[in-house]
Amino acid sequence: MNAELYFRESMHMALIVHKYGGTSMGSVERIQNVARRVAKWQKAGHQIVVVPSAMSGETNRLLGLANQLHPNPDPRELDQIASTGEQVSSGLLALALQAAGTPAVSYAGWQVVIRTDSAHTKARIESIEKDKVLSDLASGKVVVITGFQGVDERGDITTLGRGGSDTSAVAIAAALGAEECLIYTDVDGVYTTDPRVCDEARRLERITFEEMLEMASLGSKVLQIRSVEFAGKYRVKTRVLSSLTDPMIPLQQEMTSGTLITFEEDEKMEAAIISGIAFARDEAKVTVLGVPDKPGIAYQILGPIAEANIDVDMIIQNQSVDGKTDFTFTVPRSEYQKAIEILKTQVQAHMGAKEIAGDPKVSKVSVVGVGMRSHVGIASKMFRTLSEEGINIQMISTSEIKISVLIDEKYMELAVRALHKAFELEQK
Amino acid sequence: MNAELYFRESMHMALIVHKYGGTSMGSVERIQNVARRVAKWQKAGHQIVVVPSAMSGETNRLLGLANQLHPNPDPRELDQIASTGEQVSSGLLALALQAAGTPAVSYAGWQVVIRTDSAHTKARIESIEKDKVLSDLASGKVVVITGFQGVDERGDITTLGRGGSDTSAVAIAAALGAEECLIYTDVDGVYTTDPRVCDEARRLERITFEEMLEMASLGSKVLQIRSVEFAGKYRVKTRVLSSLTDPMIPLQQEMTSGTLITFEEDEKMEAAIISGIAFARDEAKVTVLGVPDKPGIAYQILGPIAEANIDVDMIIQNQSVDGKTDFTFTVPRSEYQKAIEILKTQVQAHMGAKEIAGDPKVSKVSVVGVGMRSHVGIASKMFRTLSEEGINIQMISTSEIKISVLIDEKYMELAVRALHKAFELEQK
Repeated sequence: MNAELYFRESMHMALIVHKYGGTSMGSVERIQNVARRVAKWQKAGHQIVVVPSAMSGETNRLLGLANQLHPNPDPRELDQIASTGEQVSSGLLALALQAAGTPAVSYAGWQVVIRTDSAHTKARIESIEKDKVLSDLASGKVVVITGFQGVDERGDITTLGRGGSDTSAVAIAAALGAEECLIYTDVDGVYTTDPRVCDEARRLERITFEEMLEMASLGSKVLQIRSVEFAGKYRVKTRVLSSLTDPMIPLQQEMTSGTLITFEEDEKMEAAIISGIAFARDEAKVTVLGVPDKPGIAYQILGPIAEANIDVDMIIQNQSVDGKTDFTFTVPRSEYQKAIEILKTQVQAHMGAKEIAGDPKVSKVSVVGVGMRSHVGIASKMFRTLSEEGINIQMISTSEIKISVLIDEKYMELAVRALHKAFELEQK
Repeated sequence: MNAELYFRESMHMALIVHKYGGTSMGSVERIQNVARRVAKWQKAGHQIVVVPSAMSGETNRLLGLANQLHPNPDPRELDQIASTGEQVSSGLLALALQAAGTPAVSYAGWQVVIRTDSAHTKARIESIEKDKVLSDLASGKVVVITGFQGVDERGDITTLGRGGSDTSAVAIAAALGAEECLIYTDVDGVYTTDPRVCDEARRLERITFEEMLEMASLGSKVLQIRSVEFAGKYRVKTRVLSSLTDPMIPLQQEMTSGTLITFEEDEKMEAAIISGIAFARDEAKVTVLGVPDKPGIAYQILGPIAEANIDVDMIIQNQSVDGKTDFTFTVPRSEYQKAIEILKTQVQAHMGAKEIAGDPKVSKVSVVGVGMRSHVGIASKMFRTLSEEGINIQMISTSEIKISVLIDEKYMELAVRALHKAFELEQK
């Protein structure tokens, strides 16, 4: 739904889901601001469902108590405990709405019912009952639904994992057939790159789901990645926008702010070739040198790394020379020492590898864009740009809509700025 | 069940309900102490259900947030919010039990199911499903159930009002057919009177439900009065005992500590004539003087007082003289000014009363005991004792097991000590 359509249909009712993060719900005053904003939408004739996170700091406080009582707490009990944060913020928001003269009711996930599987602390939503919510909306109420949680078939409370309120909001929007899901957050949208690194960074009015997935996984942590997958799967139009604006700004202005995450196929517009430059600063590179080149190398090297719960990102295996090869991969910098130690103690002798080497000060820079599918020369332009700045490329990995390179950490900002300029991202 | 029976049957399983107040659950260390105590009972072969209150201060914190958002908050939303305090403490206790090597599971009221009516913030329990709890107990788990709350037939969370966790515990004990309900609190039982007023005050090993009701309503606020009524109605043996003892004290010692609230009819023992001296310090007396003595005086005077939600306790109407009478009643001292004002503005002229008078510095002292039913002379002994101390009695009210007098506040401690001695309460 675009701005014109909203405007034309403003006498007509649209069902909209709002989601507010913990910072937006962080104090009595902020909750009152959220209530003013929601009341404004409702008074304009829309049906509004609101999905709030817990007040900022609350989930950490609760999990902190749990961890003091058990070194490895039962996930079922963690969910009983952590889910209360959203129940409180939802009840408080309902009260704030009522105080603003807007009828409202709050529900915990189990009351809706939001049914999930039983994977405590990382449950997946299976179904959402909509009758009670639709009936409340029809009677003129704003319906506030706890984010982050549901209930399994045994009646046990489950949570969706950190950031799960984004997923709750998108899933609720999908179940209710909402016209749009508005994710209010403390940034005002998705940028071509991090404005702290490149002051020419520009807010994107639109981005496709696929690009958003690549941007999110590469460190632009605006939305929980699962919510983006969910929005893509169920085709929920989702907008990321700021909760820090004056809550009473005109609706027409608000509904075109932020960044709309769209389906490429829906869009007639000239798609930009490149949407943004993503980066991950704190990477580390690990190399196993001089490994006899036999089948199963990758498994033998990465198996023990995976068992230690270390995430591996880029992976390269060199062309074999004289029956020996080198195997290189990247891990989060915080896991570097652990990875080196595992390779030295569990892998090197066992595989007859010559040496374990590494570099804990590397960064990853990526150009992301659906347009590159149909445009050749993106990779060569990227490599030429980096070469002109004297930046050596240590590893390369590519997907259909993304090219990532690993470079020395000290060149990261330079690389981001040079690429942002080369792909003319400062221009609309 | 007395101590010997426990001991003899210690190889045999008894179902026991424990209740812990907010102070007992007030920190990680205190929750660990509760877990040690519960684990001790469970390891001795008993099936244990635990009903904890919210961590001390938590309910007030939550209601404080609600009141900041709405001057007169929706009771339904208050219950959504306030009920989370017990859900957190229950989950934390389950974790502490697991950490102590005791299998445990926590349930919110709606998960049990504890069904209540829909009177939010002061709901009454209608039924408790026991299958899930009994099945968990049979499988060797301690079952932790949130106090203070339930769910109505619409699926809305309800709370039972302040101190409702006592009622939850007694109701759960009744539903499960528990052998005893142990109310752990920060006092070590019910005393013959307040030890701060009379240092010869002695802990009662037993007290009847009826006496407990009189003691509770007279200011010995050890147990929520509704829980005592519930225990009486469903004949749940209830023991008030200290949570401040070493959690690892021997079971035989613990199970005879505190005060057991019993059914008089069950007891073979020689019942004491008087069990205790109760008092209420902060009372106030209000008198309407010179009212024409017509039918309906009491209603016309007390109606406006009741409408203002002022609790009235003792009431006296004097013998009419020359068609005029005086009408006196007591109210909590905090309501004195309000009561006087109501009488002066709404009652005096309307009724043609001569004057409104009062005394905001009076106290009530009561002797309580089931034994007085069958013993004459209790009243005269009480009055003689007070007379010998030079204490003037301003009002008298009596029930079957209680005699209360209103006296000048400054004599309250003296009266309590003199009566405690006169009725030989320091002796077992």
